[in-house]
Amino acid sequence: MSELRWDPVKLHWVIIATDRGRRPRDFQMEPEESSLTTCPFCYGNEDKTPHEIYALRSDGGANSPNWRVRVIPNKYPALCIEGEAKTRGYGPYDRMNGVGAHEVIIETPDHERGLADLTVAELTDVLATYRARFLDLRNDPRLRYMVLYKNHGIRAGAGLSHSYSQLIAVPLTPPVAATEMKVCRDFYATKERCIYCDLIDFEISEGARVVKEFASYVTVTPFASCFPFELRLFPKKHRHDFAALGDPDLVELAQALKDMLCRLKCVLRDPPYNFILHTAPPMQHRQGKPQYWGSLEYDYHWHIELVPRLIQIAGFEWGTGFYINPTSPEDAAAFLREAEV
Amino acid sequence: MSELRWDPVKLHWVIIATDRGRRPRDFQMEPEESSLTTCPFCYGNEDKTPHEIYALRSDGGANSPNWRVRVIPNKYPALCIEGEAKTRGYGPYDRMNGVGAHEVIIETPDHERGLADLTVAELTDVLATYRARFLDLRNDPRLRYMVLYKNHGIRAGAGLSHSYSQLIAVPLTPPVAATEMKVCRDFYATKERCIYCDLIDFEISEGARVVKEFASYVTVTPFASCFPFELRLFPKKHRHDFAALGDPDLVELAQALKDMLCRLKCVLRDPPYNFILHTAPPMQHRQGKPQYWGSLEYDYHWHIELVPRLIQIAGFEWGTGFYINPTSPEDAAAFLREAEV
Repeated sequence: MSELRWDPVKLHWVIIATDRGRRPRDFQMEPEESSLTTCPFCYGNEDKTPHEIYALRSDGGANSPNWRVRVIPNKYPALCIEGEAKTRGYGPYDRMNGVGAHEVIIETPDHERGLADLTVAELTDVLATYRARFLDLRNDPRLRYMVLYKNHGIRAGAGLSHSYSQLIAVPLTPPVAATEMKVCRDFYATKERCIYCDLIDFEISEGARVVKEFASYVTVTPFASCFPFELRLFPKKHRHDFAALGDPDLVELAQALKDMLCRLKCVLRDPPYNFILHTAPPMQHRQGKPQYWGSLEYDYHWHIELVPRLIQIAGFEWGTGFYINPTSPEDAAAFLREAEV
Repeated sequence: MSELRWDPVKLHWVIIATDRGRRPRDFQMEPEESSLTTCPFCYGNEDKTPHEIYALRSDGGANSPNWRVRVIPNKYPALCIEGEAKTRGYGPYDRMNGVGAHEVIIETPDHERGLADLTVAELTDVLATYRARFLDLRNDPRLRYMVLYKNHGIRAGAGLSHSYSQLIAVPLTPPVAATEMKVCRDFYATKERCIYCDLIDFEISEGARVVKEFASYVTVTPFASCFPFELRLFPKKHRHDFAALGDPDLVELAQALKDMLCRLKCVLRDPPYNFILHTAPPMQHRQGKPQYWGSLEYDYHWHIELVPRLIQIAGFEWGTGFYINPTSPEDAAAFLREAEV
């Protein structure tokens, strides 16, 4: 029999329907073809992209080739930086200028390596670049929230095969983040504890959904996973803000992230996936809000969410907000634990 | 510049980013291959499916070939009919048996014809079958909500190329439906009007997003469309319950639905799509609820929502609940109005 499961933070039910059972081999992917001709993200092709916003490089000026990680504006941005961020009415609706930022983080100059293939030092550079861009974009008071995400593989929405992440800064708090922050705030208001800290403690004590535990981080498959092999990577100690991490924290995080990505690559043969960094919004947007809004450092817990793109979202999911997941998170965690990395 | 738009019923913002502009030819599909060997939904292969639940046929007994529309249980159901529908706690989470129904409505015995190719009389039969299944499943008090949906084309999640719809009855009100019904109820509580009636009046008076107006129905592209060529089909007069439609209503609806599907097929060359019927839940689940819950006949407005599957849902959408739509609903409506049907 299938089971319905409730996520107390996301506020969703999911249908775990293992009778439709899917084991890793049902999902394994053929490697996607990559075309090497004139990739604008490759070393030496810096003049084929818009001017860089930020880069980590040992020497040389902006847009020169000696970079390790490079940030450029998206050539086809969903949002643009000019304009006023105010809503206005239109009949029964509201509208607003598409103000924001849309950046591309090129994770490596090497076309042939994905994020999972980078060394811990290289991954640390990528994470330090994320942090730098968060800290910079927070200076713009119009930008309410920053969404750092990665689409890996064409089936997960990647436009180019060269490995990159994206950062979109939006003038409104996105609904998924708003719900999550409200739940965290309400829970803290009642219990003076972080709900994520409770969930992490419970998961570590249960063990069935723990993929890998490090000194400071833990990777789990969520109890109410919407998709097969969904993953979350949490700092074990309460930390609300990814951008406040120190350099040693980033090295440990790079180890945990590499472990997670390598396990996934091993078990499902490099599946397409999306990951999203969930972190607290800029400080200036916490003022003048209800009582506990000013205390995200107490009630919010940053983390990374990863969804492999193995099954299709169809009419039922779109029409209901319910998801049907054919692989139990306990099975997924067991396969991932056994991966040789 | 792109624009953010707010949907006052769905409670979502969407980014209309037409600079990434997509016109119909960018989306046009190659026809998908269909394999004719041993399709279990074809005329004469009735013994290759589970025993039928319901059928429209001129003569002959159950599971005989003389049918026009046929309903069978899904062979790989997401939910099963046996068991108790009660939630229980598990640490910080909740869980529940996967109780429900999962049916397949085979829309035609003819393998080669899709829903858009059926005659108005045949489409009326399909709609009458939907109605019959709604009315029957409402007798089970464990089933809170019925989701009638169709996945057309493999890229939209269809498992077989023979044309069929599905009905899932769930033991909980799905979040998308719960939000929509709450908005309708709250609006009615304040204004004593249906919010959808307001939106329909506004759209008809504006015209830019109207695709086709019939005597009793109207097809529009929603102002805050999340996807290119998204469509909604509304009864113009306030009606809360699809299953309460009379036979003449169904004929008119079949005309409007055929028109919508044919326009889509013409403009985008038979794209994959999902549609979902949004209607009021069974009567017994409206009792003992807040003041206006008992008055869905006043505050809810049934309709059909259709989403062509032309673009990929990726990390940003999953992580935020924001959607980026590269085609404005005004452009989509203009193309669909000009279609020769």
